Amino acid sequence: MEERAIKAIQDDYPDDFAWCYGCGRMNEDGHHFRTGWQGEQTVTIYTPKPEHTALPGFVYGGIMASLIDCHGTGSAALALHRKNGHEPGDGSEPPRFVTASLKVDFLRPTPQGVQLKAVGTVHEIHPKKWKVDTKVFADDSLVVRGEVIAVVMPSTFTKKAAAE
Amino acid sequence: MEERAIKAIQDDYPDDFAWCYGCGRMNEDGHHFRTGWQGEQTVTIYTPKPEHTALPGFVYGGIMASLIDCHGTGSAALALHRKNGHEPGDGSEPPRFVTASLKVDFLRPTPQGVQLKAVGTVHEIHPKKWKVDTKVFADDSLVVRGEVIAVVMPSTFTKKAAAE
Repeated sequence: MEERAIKAIQDDYPDDFAWCYGCGRMNEDGHHFRTGWQGEQTVTIYTPKPEHTALPGFVYGGIMASLIDCHGTGSAALALHRKNGHEPGDGSEPPRFVTASLKVDFLRPTPQGVQLKAVGTVHEIHPKKWKVDTKVFADDSLVVRGEVIAVVMPSTFTKKAAAE
Repeated sequence: MEERAIKAIQDDYPDDFAWCYGCGRMNEDGHHFRTGWQGEQTVTIYTPKPEHTALPGFVYGGIMASLIDCHGTGSAALALHRKNGHEPGDGSEPPRFVTASLKVDFLRPTPQGVQLKAVGTVHEIHPKKWKVDTKVFADDSLVVRGEVIAVVMPSTFTKKAAAE
């Protein structure tokens, strides 16, 4: 559980932007993915719920895709925030990203009842567009590989959220 | 609601294989995606729940990825079943597929409170490997494009499921 206590970028999103079903702390029904730094890499720890099955005993692919998606946008936010001189928990508001594209390769079945660890490497394409390569491990076994292209949230989203 | 009444491939899966969080009819907590033929294309109709938000007003990307994932495996099952001379509801057990890879391009934000329609075109790569190209429409607006490579379920899954 030590790894759960990382300083997560999602903890610093303003309330209006914290409703994501994947990673929003305000969304009671959601997954509450939390993403932080581990050295130069990004990490999200998550244990799927019993109902998140593909077949009994194996984790549903859509949950793995969701983990990679939010881990990707969170990782891009961490990286741009660090580039701007900030770390999670330092009191400054982080940038927010949306997913432009998502790729997931299912390398082997993901066993249920096991804590998953998504580990990301972030690459800047340009200041508003970042690529996050992610590997997901279950008990040290690499089960899924993913890639997210994340872009800084366009104003069409932020205007709508502010109006709610 | 007429479109909801399609004959869906998921209705014909044996009970042991009907626990998928995305498309299993036995999984009480799941999305219950149902996929059937509409001419030579495949269709899955789904309305996301209120909690499936990215930001308030927009649908979470992980739900869109889940829809494309199960629509893909269901479409591949429909296509191989038809190739074998069968249609959903004819009393024969369909093949089951798993996802090898998933790609999702988010073209524009998906509005909430709108019925989504995933439309798939299925291509045979070889008899055990199929590609499904999917477009997801919200109120006739193309919002997301996806590609699934689906493979016939390997025996590692079926043995496990049979043992449960």
